[in-house]
Amino acid sequence: MTAKHLSFTILGTGALGGFYGSRLLQGGSTVRFIAHSDVDWMRTHGLRVDSPLGDLVHQPVEVYASADAIPPSDVVCVALKTTQNAQLPELLKPLVRAGTVILNLQNGLTMEDELAAAFPDACVIAGLCFLCSNKVGPGHIAHLDYGLVSFAAFDERGHDWIPRLMAAFSAGGIAVESRPSLPQARWRKLAWNIPFNGLSVLLGVNTDVIMADPDARALAEELMAEVAVGAAACGVPFDTGFTRALLDITERMTPYAPSMRLDFLARREIELEYLYRRPLREVARHGVRLPAVEAIASQLAFADRRNREG
Amino acid sequence: MTAKHLSFTILGTGALGGFYGSRLLQGGSTVRFIAHSDVDWMRTHGLRVDSPLGDLVHQPVEVYASADAIPPSDVVCVALKTTQNAQLPELLKPLVRAGTVILNLQNGLTMEDELAAAFPDACVIAGLCFLCSNKVGPGHIAHLDYGLVSFAAFDERGHDWIPRLMAAFSAGGIAVESRPSLPQARWRKLAWNIPFNGLSVLLGVNTDVIMADPDARALAEELMAEVAVGAAACGVPFDTGFTRALLDITERMTPYAPSMRLDFLARREIELEYLYRRPLREVARHGVRLPAVEAIASQLAFADRRNREG
Repeated sequence: MTAKHLSFTILGTGALGGFYGSRLLQGGSTVRFIAHSDVDWMRTHGLRVDSPLGDLVHQPVEVYASADAIPPSDVVCVALKTTQNAQLPELLKPLVRAGTVILNLQNGLTMEDELAAAFPDACVIAGLCFLCSNKVGPGHIAHLDYGLVSFAAFDERGHDWIPRLMAAFSAGGIAVESRPSLPQARWRKLAWNIPFNGLSVLLGVNTDVIMADPDARALAEELMAEVAVGAAACGVPFDTGFTRALLDITERMTPYAPSMRLDFLARREIELEYLYRRPLREVARHGVRLPAVEAIASQLAFADRRNREG
Repeated sequence: MTAKHLSFTILGTGALGGFYGSRLLQGGSTVRFIAHSDVDWMRTHGLRVDSPLGDLVHQPVEVYASADAIPPSDVVCVALKTTQNAQLPELLKPLVRAGTVILNLQNGLTMEDELAAAFPDACVIAGLCFLCSNKVGPGHIAHLDYGLVSFAAFDERGHDWIPRLMAAFSAGGIAVESRPSLPQARWRKLAWNIPFNGLSVLLGVNTDVIMADPDARALAEELMAEVAVGAAACGVPFDTGFTRALLDITERMTPYAPSMRLDFLARREIELEYLYRRPLREVARHGVRLPAVEAIASQLAFADRRNREG
C-alpha cells in the first residue's frame, strides 16, 4: 500500500463526494462510490464533473447502492449531510474495520467525537473542504471554484495517515494542507459557515448581496465576531486578523449560494444541528453565550420547519 | 374649558388616529382630523369605524388637508407613523401655541424628547396605545380589540392635564391609566413591540404562529429578556413577573398582525428607527448592548430596504 494507491469509499455522491471522488480517481486512487437515488443512472452514464480543472466523465464508475456489497477500502470518506448523522454509525458499520481511516468531510462541530466514539478501532480524520460545488443532476456535479482540503487528525493515530491522504488528493489536483488542531480547524470553518449559511437562508440572498448591503454585512461581521468569542471560549482563539481576512476573501468571491441556502431552496432539511446547535452547546459548556448566533439559529429552526411542512 | 369639552386635532387619520378620534367624538369632545389622501373621501362619506364597541359613521366630520386652515385645539394628537418624524416639527408648527398639549400616540423611544426640544412652550404628554386596529379603506377603520391608553407626562407641566385627557378618552369608552414614569412606560411597551413587530416581519407570520412555535417563541422571549436588560440599564427596571405576564397576554390574544408587519406587507417603510435604533442607542449610552435585538434590527434594515426597492 503506497501513497499513490490508496482505496477510497465515498459515502454520499453529491456535490462534495462526487467532486472529490472524481479528483481522487483522476489522481490514480481506487474509488468506490455509494450513491442512493443516482445508482442506476451512474451505472449507465457514469459520473460527470464539470470543473475549471477540466470536465470529466468517469465511465464506468464503481458505484454501489449499499455498503454491504462493497470491498473494504483503506479510507471511508463521509460525504453525506450531517442531517443524516443519526444513521451514520449504521451506514458505516459494514465499511469500517480496525485501522480503517474515516475521513469526515462534513461541516459543523463534534462529528469526529461521535465517529471516534462509535468506531474506537478506526482512525478518525477531519477533511475540511473549502469548495464551491453543486450537484446539478443525477451523477452530475458542477464544480465552481476552490477545493482546498484541510486535514486534521482526531488523535495521534491520524498523524501518519495525513501525509498519505494529502498525497492522494494532491495527485488529483486538489490543494491540501494539514492543521495541527482539529477544534481550531473546525472553529475557523464555522467562522464563515455560521454567518453566511444562516444569513443566506434568512435574507434569501447569495454572499455577494450580503457583502454589498451595509446592514447585512454588519450582521455577518457581528456573527463572525461571536464565533471568534466561541472559539476562544473553547480554547482555540483565532489569530489576529483572521476574521478580517475571511471577510476580504468573501468580498472577492464569486457570488455564491452557500449549501444551506441550496438545501433550503430545495426544501431539504438544513444542517442546523451540527452547524449551529452543537457550537452553541460547546460554548455553553464553558459558560459562554453567543446571543446573535442563538437568534439566527432560532429563526433558522422556525424557517426550516415551515419550509419542509410545505 | 371643562374635561368634557376639550378640543383635539388629530394629526394622521389612520388605524390609530381614526379610531381614537372617533371615540373622542363619541365622548363629546370636539375633534378635528388632518388627513392626507383620504380628505376628499371623508368630506363626502365621513369617517367609518367598525368596532366591538359599536360600528359608527361620523358624517359630517371636521377634516382638513393641511394644518394651516385648522382652528387651534387644546390638544394635538400625533398619530402619524414615526417614519414621518423628520417632518413633524414643520407639520406641528401651525397647530401648537404656548400651552398646547402635544399628545404623542406613537410607538418607540425618544419621540417626546424631540417634541419637547422643538416646542419648549408646549406641554408634551405620551399616550401609549394598546390597540389592535387596522385601516381597511379610505376613511374606514376596523377596530379589532383592546384600546387602553396609558398616559405619562414628559415633565411636570403634564400632570394637571392627564386627568382631563383621561376623562375625555374615558367618556368615549376607552380604558385609560396614568403612569408615573414616561421612560418606564415606553420601555414596557417596547417589551412587546421589539419582539413581536420584528419577528412578525422576519418570520412572515402573525403573533399566534410565533407563540405556537417553540423556536420562534423562545426567540421572542429572549428578545423580551434583552429589552428588560435595556430598561434596567436606562434606570427603569421591569417589575418581577412583568415579561411573563406579557407573554401570557400575547398567548391569549386574537391572532394579530403587528403594525410593522402590515407596513411591510404594504411595502411601506417600517418604524425601524424609533422602535429599534433609538432603544439600542439609548442603552449603548449606558455601555450596554442587546445583541439579539441588534441582529433582528440589522435584518429588518436589510429586509425593509429590499422590500421598498421592489
